[in-house]
Amino acid sequence: MKIGIFGTGMVGVALGTKLASRGHKVMMGSRTVDNAKAADWVRAAGTNASAGTFTDAAAHGETVVNCTAGSASLEALRLAGEKNLEGKILIDVANPLDFSRGFPPSLTVCNTDSLGEQIQAAFPRTKVVKTLNTMNCVVMVDPSIVPGEHDAFVCGDDPEARAQVTAWLGEWFGWRPERVIDLGDITSARGTEMMLPVWLRLWGTFKTPNLNFHIALGAKPAP
Amino acid sequence: MKIGIFGTGMVGVALGTKLASRGHKVMMGSRTVDNAKAADWVRAAGTNASAGTFTDAAAHGETVVNCTAGSASLEALRLAGEKNLEGKILIDVANPLDFSRGFPPSLTVCNTDSLGEQIQAAFPRTKVVKTLNTMNCVVMVDPSIVPGEHDAFVCGDDPEARAQVTAWLGEWFGWRPERVIDLGDITSARGTEMMLPVWLRLWGTFKTPNLNFHIALGAKPAP
Repeated sequence: MKIGIFGTGMVGVALGTKLASRGHKVMMGSRTVDNAKAADWVRAAGTNASAGTFTDAAAHGETVVNCTAGSASLEALRLAGEKNLEGKILIDVANPLDFSRGFPPSLTVCNTDSLGEQIQAAFPRTKVVKTLNTMNCVVMVDPSIVPGEHDAFVCGDDPEARAQVTAWLGEWFGWRPERVIDLGDITSARGTEMMLPVWLRLWGTFKTPNLNFHIALGAKPAP
Repeated sequence: MKIGIFGTGMVGVALGTKLASRGHKVMMGSRTVDNAKAADWVRAAGTNASAGTFTDAAAHGETVVNCTAGSASLEALRLAGEKNLEGKILIDVANPLDFSRGFPPSLTVCNTDSLGEQIQAAFPRTKVVKTLNTMNCVVMVDPSIVPGEHDAFVCGDDPEARAQVTAWLGEWFGWRPERVIDLGDITSARGTEMMLPVWLRLWGTFKTPNLNFHIALGAKPAP
């Protein structure tokens, strides 16, 4: 299928490369049509890869994946144009990280709001599904790199869109459906975005970004 | 050993009961010496259990476990008196939940600060170790209730205190040391306290509080 990738960083490159290798027609969108990182990626990723502005990539994609820095996401999506996103599923893997005070970053929004909610509010006719933001991009596109059971989450107001994204996570990246936890409406993005601070600590503790959260379940208590 | 438990709610009762059953001399502290819930607990928990004010419980304990509601923790600890906590390890299992806008709660502090840090700042001569706040109290005192591997975290400025609490989690509740992740200084409490919003969602999704986080680890990337 035709997929628009927003963002030319590590995450956009990882997802775009994997999707192009799977035979999808992937256009990487950025602020300018002659972005050097996007051009490098197109050369590396082959015939299924192309590059353009955010507007071009949004118009190209049957679905769009937001891989921009969280602080730049809303502006990038506005540049794409509401019409070009209307009716489509927007997969949001971004985190609202605030590096203005150095490392580790804090969040620009949390607790009573989230980036996922802000995007959904700004684009009410787009079906925003927050997912994969709780892990490194290497794990996103190849969950087998972390052994054992570990989980992804989907958050979004449209149940069919959450189910569709769950199916795509399987087809695109190999996420088994039982390892994708449906947390319900987009307000649950507060929870998954707020996992970033502990994720950053775990990265420092274990000296590897190749880790992920697993939700271990016990028996339900007697009613 | 002699242990002070702060708080008469579900968490204080669960931890106090388990510790008394293990032979520790547990005093449950609350605002008033004749607290009805504490008296009920003393009757149920047997000869190792006693009750008193926060001051009494802090003076009694070689260590103190803060199981109060996060919104009440700092005041409870102030009532206990700095002298009675000086030099001791204070195990903080509370979460700064804000129920003022209903359910689900938000956090009263997060992102650039945490309850754990606020307690450490208020009691600089006490060794605050944040732990167990990322799970239900049933799981805290019996990790075997959730099958498979799942993890607790310790956060605190004093490495020896973190190691001591890790050992106590094993002796008291059965947490194997390899399942207790040392996240370093008390600023890491931001991360573990910010796991509460997704925990609350998971509780709603799976209809059970008998769940816990596990950190699945892959190989370290080549340097």
